Amino acid sequence: MAKIKALFFDIDDTLYDSSKLAKLARKNSIKAMIDAGLPEKDEVKVFEILKKVIKKFGSNYPHHYDELIKEMGESWDPKIIASGVVAYEHIKVVYLKPFPNVVPILLEIKKNYKLGVISNGLAIKQWEKLVGLGVHHLFNIVVTSEEEGFEKPDQQIFTHAVKKMGLKPEECIMVGDRLDNDIVGAKKSGMLTILIKNDNEGKMSTDGEKPDFIINEFSELIEILNDLG
Amino acid sequence: MAKIKALFFDIDDTLYDSSKLAKLARKNSIKAMIDAGLPEKDEVKVFEILKKVIKKFGSNYPHHYDELIKEMGESWDPKIIASGVVAYEHIKVVYLKPFPNVVPILLEIKKNYKLGVISNGLAIKQWEKLVGLGVHHLFNIVVTSEEEGFEKPDQQIFTHAVKKMGLKPEECIMVGDRLDNDIVGAKKSGMLTILIKNDNEGKMSTDGEKPDFIINEFSELIEILNDLG
Repeated sequence: MAKIKALFFDIDDTLYDSSKLAKLARKNSIKAMIDAGLPEKDEVKVFEILKKVIKKFGSNYPHHYDELIKEMGESWDPKIIASGVVAYEHIKVVYLKPFPNVVPILLEIKKNYKLGVISNGLAIKQWEKLVGLGVHHLFNIVVTSEEEGFEKPDQQIFTHAVKKMGLKPEECIMVGDRLDNDIVGAKKSGMLTILIKNDNEGKMSTDGEKPDFIINEFSELIEILNDLG
Repeated sequence: MAKIKALFFDIDDTLYDSSKLAKLARKNSIKAMIDAGLPEKDEVKVFEILKKVIKKFGSNYPHHYDELIKEMGESWDPKIIASGVVAYEHIKVVYLKPFPNVVPILLEIKKNYKLGVISNGLAIKQWEKLVGLGVHHLFNIVVTSEEEGFEKPDQQIFTHAVKKMGLKPEECIMVGDRLDNDIVGAKKSGMLTILIKNDNEGKMSTDGEKPDFIINEFSELIEILNDLG
């Protein structure tokens, strides 16, 4: 087996608890929009409608609250929308923190391996997350689907990332939380794969592909690297 | 003279120190961009280039940092841009506060008068400021140039605002920091006008039009209203 020289990481739900942050931020937004005059006062009901809107337009769509209000049959109201946006941003500034152990473990790994990120999304938005998390100086390269023109699980985004690092796929490990996006494509490209388990397994569609390793938290990476020699 | 029934306010540099916030936020961004790898390390030099970019594209243009990097002859770098954006947002969340006395004085005035906002800009962006300042519940109406289709100093934005309040211009006072935008148009529409002085007077072009009152801080509004009966 080739000597491992680099690890690539997914961002959302791998480096930080993106699902929990989004949920907290959306709930805070809903409270603020109700306070600002949203006629429906039942937070749970509004949250369900917002989930539908996010599913319909995708999580990166920039006008969820406009669509939420439309979906509820209300007329456009900048006071309500702005209240939602500000409440979301406030949570983001306060709660955007890496999972426990992520920074010390990355620093430890960095002594002997190169580090990279492979992420679906807009380059600036994904970098904003790395900057907000305070980990933007830790990675040798960061590869986004916007810049590459390929999205995970397309194996080309993985092979491009490996090439940019100046390595071969078998010298690299991909670490991510999604079997469908992170593991399947990386395995196809010839990388080793580590699935980090979290509460979002329901999102994954499996097609029989299995990760080489499964971990429950970041510190287990060190053991795996030690075992791999 | 008609009895005064309502006061309208400008937002930027009237309710809060918008110029100082922008300056602090931009300086913080520049530090972050230099830290993220901007080749030019002289903060003062970068600030001068950024000022040129903002002047060229307007302060509401959403891609100042992209243009800054282009202007400096560097290639687009999402790490640098994202670092600038995050640093700017962090300052905004922390420093967006009303001028001293604004909230207690508005609460005092609100007992006997209606309150409104007349602001140039995008509705949601201007409302985000009011929400961030915590004053979004204090105003009976908020009128933005985006929604009205007219910008200050066009007198139509003032007459529309007055009509929305259900009043006549002579029953209303406009309070703002800019002679050109706030005072000139409001006077033409028949409103009384109060100029609040701050450090940004250099920005104003005067065409001989004078405000009815000049104040140095918000608390003086009470005296003027008492004098007007």
